[in-house]
Amino acid sequence: MTVNDIARASGVSRATVSLVLRGSPLVHAETRNRVELELKRQGYVYNRGAANLRRRTSSSVALVINDLSNPFFAEFAMGVDEALVGEGYVTLLGSTGESPARQETLLASLMEHSPAGVILSPAEHSDGERLQRLLGPHTAVLVFNRELPGAGYDFLALDNRRGAWLATEHLLARGHRRIAFFGGHADSSSCQQRRQGYADAMIAAGIPPDPRWLIESAPTRVEASQRTVELFAHARAPTAAVCYNDNVALGLKLGLIARGVRPGLDFALTGFDDIPEAAQTTPPLTTIAVEPRARGRQAAELLLQRVRDRDAPTRQVVAPVQLVVRGSSGAPPS
Amino acid sequence: MTVNDIARASGVSRATVSLVLRGSPLVHAETRNRVELELKRQGYVYNRGAANLRRRTSSSVALVINDLSNPFFAEFAMGVDEALVGEGYVTLLGSTGESPARQETLLASLMEHSPAGVILSPAEHSDGERLQRLLGPHTAVLVFNRELPGAGYDFLALDNRRGAWLATEHLLARGHRRIAFFGGHADSSSCQQRRQGYADAMIAAGIPPDPRWLIESAPTRVEASQRTVELFAHARAPTAAVCYNDNVALGLKLGLIARGVRPGLDFALTGFDDIPEAAQTTPPLTTIAVEPRARGRQAAELLLQRVRDRDAPTRQVVAPVQLVVRGSSGAPPS
Repeated sequence: MTVNDIARASGVSRATVSLVLRGSPLVHAETRNRVELELKRQGYVYNRGAANLRRRTSSSVALVINDLSNPFFAEFAMGVDEALVGEGYVTLLGSTGESPARQETLLASLMEHSPAGVILSPAEHSDGERLQRLLGPHTAVLVFNRELPGAGYDFLALDNRRGAWLATEHLLARGHRRIAFFGGHADSSSCQQRRQGYADAMIAAGIPPDPRWLIESAPTRVEASQRTVELFAHARAPTAAVCYNDNVALGLKLGLIARGVRPGLDFALTGFDDIPEAAQTTPPLTTIAVEPRARGRQAAELLLQRVRDRDAPTRQVVAPVQLVVRGSSGAPPS
Repeated sequence: MTVNDIARASGVSRATVSLVLRGSPLVHAETRNRVELELKRQGYVYNRGAANLRRRTSSSVALVINDLSNPFFAEFAMGVDEALVGEGYVTLLGSTGESPARQETLLASLMEHSPAGVILSPAEHSDGERLQRLLGPHTAVLVFNRELPGAGYDFLALDNRRGAWLATEHLLARGHRRIAFFGGHADSSSCQQRRQGYADAMIAAGIPPDPRWLIESAPTRVEASQRTVELFAHARAPTAAVCYNDNVALGLKLGLIARGVRPGLDFALTGFDDIPEAAQTTPPLTTIAVEPRARGRQAAELLLQRVRDRDAPTRQVVAPVQLVVRGSSGAPPS
């Protein structure tokens, strides 16, 4: 009995059976049940080791991220690795530090090693067409996190707009009216989408955002901390901020403390990502959980599906997000 | 005029001149002064780009670390990358998650890519002889952080013994007498050396450490937090702990808070590493600064020296450490 028998009997593709066998979250629950019933009926025992040996062609997957100093990407990389190790691949990781030039050098070097595929979280200001020429037409590529305009690759996105909308709604419900959007670079797709979600929620509450409430910062702690002063540079200073990500929120927290402003009491803030530190900092950070490690596993699954089926139509998968309320987002001081 | 002229005129080796030109911290100050005077006298202008082009042979360096979830290694990896990018190399990073089997798979895969060299922070229970057979006799290798018994590689170590000694001395000076050594696995070389420094300081103060004060834990926050209970399981409970590293100290801090024990006030603790979070947590963590990013740059420099001179005698370099006193290490409650 083979995967083919199971696929035929349950009326799905071989690929779907394979996904069910690996416990992939990408299979619809109803389909999964049907396949699992059929597997049970036929008494199928999955031998993962043997499957790897049969399938093994290339042994590495290239993972190129834009900022290794952000724990979000360390978590993401560990998720990728967790999913790939079971499939007999090793992950070769490179970090671009947000430099498109460095990204090209890295990818060119990695391509010499003929990876089975590439997972890429693009540096800011990446040129999709250039990268596509560099990677060639036959490379399996999964883009993560930021859009790569001009390249027709599979894309795993986060639901940025909804995440920022949820955070803004939450601060509004706590009674805040002057709410900033703090951090990120306005020309990155993820920042644009998060700003959009923020603006939607503000406008729905009848509060058109003051342009002075939109403050840019590199998504690093050091710069976010330095830019804290810009929040308080005018009379209509905000009482709360939706931060671009957790790194920025943790930097803002330091900037607030340095000014004698108590985060969570005198000023409310929310993050985005839910890196491990978010729950552990004082006060713990209200944030938008995207489960970076699970996203890493998902990115690896999506890439491997592309490796197995080069001719499938290009896909865009938007991963759901969730508001996690902790101590950093109290009501405004009365 | 060439590097040879400078070397001859200042009475040092070519390699030393090269190190001075790249601003390496490995050159003795007096030697550096001599070389720099000679460079100035002869009007030497260093063209790094041209030097790279002349020297370039292989384009990648493999970096294999044992735990990507520890910010210490993210910092270290960024330092490696910073130093290599200027020399025209890309870093290919893999994480073993402390699994010797995974380490072998990773190294085997990386070796297929013919890296110019390998920087390895070995997984626990690594077998040096096996790894040496795997890597072959012609690979330039720099071992970092943990000893790799049985392999004759260059080794960049931290001054573990002195670091733990400094931390213990500091807690003794604050008035603590019952001091634990918390975390790490007793069979790892770095843990053994840190425990030794702790024991030396305790014995010098006339306090033989109670065996119940030696508590093992994986160097992760989650396990360290779970093992907090073991500190208080008997009547002679310690009032302070020298922690194996910052990750362990941050986990212990969470474990203390969960028990209603206030870190820094009711219980003193010190870390090791000085990861960026150490200064930012509440209370900020007293720790032993090893400057992980600078260590990464140094590891890359040492590896490149080996790449350039395969016949030089094997070296062991011990990087200095420094006590940084912050709020987590107050006096015992009276």
